Amino acid sequence: MADIDVAQVADAEVAELVRAEVDFRWPEGVAGLDEVARYGLVPFGKMMGPWLLIRSSLAVGGEIRPVLPAAVAVECIQVGAMMHDDIIDGDPQRRGKPAAHAVFGTPTAVVGGDGLFFHGFAALSECGKAGVPAARVGRALTVLSEAGLRIGSAAVEEIRMGRTICSVEKYLAMIKDKSGALLWMACGVGATLAGADESSVAALRRYSDLLGIGYQIRDDMMAYDGTRAGKPNVSDVRNGRPTLPVLLAHRRAPRDRQRVIERLLADTASPAEERHDAMAELVHEFDGIRSAREMSHRYVRMAAMALNDLPPTEHRTALIELTVPGRLV
Amino acid sequence: MADIDVAQVADAEVAELVRAEVDFRWPEGVAGLDEVARYGLVPFGKMMGPWLLIRSSLAVGGEIRPVLPAAVAVECIQVGAMMHDDIIDGDPQRRGKPAAHAVFGTPTAVVGGDGLFFHGFAALSECGKAGVPAARVGRALTVLSEAGLRIGSAAVEEIRMGRTICSVEKYLAMIKDKSGALLWMACGVGATLAGADESSVAALRRYSDLLGIGYQIRDDMMAYDGTRAGKPNVSDVRNGRPTLPVLLAHRRAPRDRQRVIERLLADTASPAEERHDAMAELVHEFDGIRSAREMSHRYVRMAAMALNDLPPTEHRTALIELTVPGRLV
Repeated sequence: MADIDVAQVADAEVAELVRAEVDFRWPEGVAGLDEVARYGLVPFGKMMGPWLLIRSSLAVGGEIRPVLPAAVAVECIQVGAMMHDDIIDGDPQRRGKPAAHAVFGTPTAVVGGDGLFFHGFAALSECGKAGVPAARVGRALTVLSEAGLRIGSAAVEEIRMGRTICSVEKYLAMIKDKSGALLWMACGVGATLAGADESSVAALRRYSDLLGIGYQIRDDMMAYDGTRAGKPNVSDVRNGRPTLPVLLAHRRAPRDRQRVIERLLADTASPAEERHDAMAELVHEFDGIRSAREMSHRYVRMAAMALNDLPPTEHRTALIELTVPGRLV
Repeated sequence: MADIDVAQVADAEVAELVRAEVDFRWPEGVAGLDEVARYGLVPFGKMMGPWLLIRSSLAVGGEIRPVLPAAVAVECIQVGAMMHDDIIDGDPQRRGKPAAHAVFGTPTAVVGGDGLFFHGFAALSECGKAGVPAARVGRALTVLSEAGLRIGSAAVEEIRMGRTICSVEKYLAMIKDKSGALLWMACGVGATLAGADESSVAALRRYSDLLGIGYQIRDDMMAYDGTRAGKPNVSDVRNGRPTLPVLLAHRRAPRDRQRVIERLLADTASPAEERHDAMAELVHEFDGIRSAREMSHRYVRMAAMALNDLPPTEHRTALIELTVPGRLV
């Protein structure tokens, strides 16, 4: 297999490599569990996980080829988690097409998500054959499974927090595990597979946690300020999710308007579109979007600073560029 | 940590060790995702997975302590899969108490099952710290994840096969992946962690696949012939599962009675208890139970013979004893 000139690899090429790898593993026409996996994986998403994994690996002196199976692994696990999220949230759309549970039925989508998790760990184990020393695969296994546990804990927490107002601090702690751990899964696996030292691993951990918070706030904002690609805007309100723009607006609103926000979150009866529009109006009236945007900027700036402990390479630069508002979606 | 005298370890002690380990990791009163995990794990089941893992490891020259985290791992993964099965089958009971989805709600039970999978892989990764060489952990990771994929494939297949008659051969192939892979997950991980050679690994693979088929047939029979502990007997008929006793009875029945069996499988309207009783009568009338029992015996006998390639130790004897009809539940 011809090796890739690391210095020459542009972002688009990284994504293309992972896409080719996924397409090779789950070619068009696969059946059974693999058909469900391919349905979730293709059309491809932003490939942020694989991109972060590969860049993190390169940033600590690694190479692309040996970690390519792990890049597929984090994509599998993210897509599996989304498949289950869509069941939980009752979201009928994903990546611009019907969600897996809407096509295959909920039972098959439950098993399909499970299958993607196991595919992820199977792909990780291939890194050993691809030349990564076994001890590094073991370290990456710890990172991957513990990150998955953080994401699961956040999901349980998020379900419990539904339909009520909580403190901003509690919400930030939840999304640190929900989205920070998702990015950490990628950065941490990439770095440990490349044999990174503890200080680089710790820098990437701070980076991914902070970037994940910033990323999630941006995602929360989109429900009230713009169009979320392929996902209905009303999902958060329909599911009574107290996202950051709502919590920040609630904090600024007078008591009587706070009560309206609380009622909209708790309401399960009136049409979701109606509730969404009323909530969006309140979020804007009490500056929820502007305050959330400021917080998001603050977190991604801190994420960039966290990388000071990494060696100054073009890959560190690429990771820092991801924190520039506008790049991050 | 005091080491355990392998030769002295009786079956009950193996189970006790694993129980203590689970109880230590998820003590009473844990919250969030861990509360769901503990709910699924405790009260303890038969601990067949952990038992098989430890015995397989000992049978190829391994020790207990280093593989104990992996014994917890296979229990986690089995319980996670059952949590999702109960959602899929709409079974309200498990291990004599309400199923997790009935207590925590379906969304939390979906995430709870996911969490148990990630706990499983996290526990496997601990074997490295417990003294297992990293290359063996890597081999075990491949076995664990690929066995999980076989189980997932069988689950998708089983959902698709629902409510219709299929060939006995097709059914046996499905349960080889459904139950054979579950036992193989335990035997294979135990053997690879202990550094087993290829011939021992292959012997345990044949053993677990054959034993799994025998085990599943026995489980299928219990729906029509006895009481399945903690699981409603009517579940198979309610879900239109064409299990082996039904398929064998169908094969012997005259055309008009075959049509009745087919209608009972396809029926989703009349009360499940009623359909179950009618199906049980047909299964008995056309010798479905007796033929299934014979097949089950044949498979477990073959499982015992598969172990001829293992070194003759008391652990091999213990594995063979599991195939004695009556021991196997």
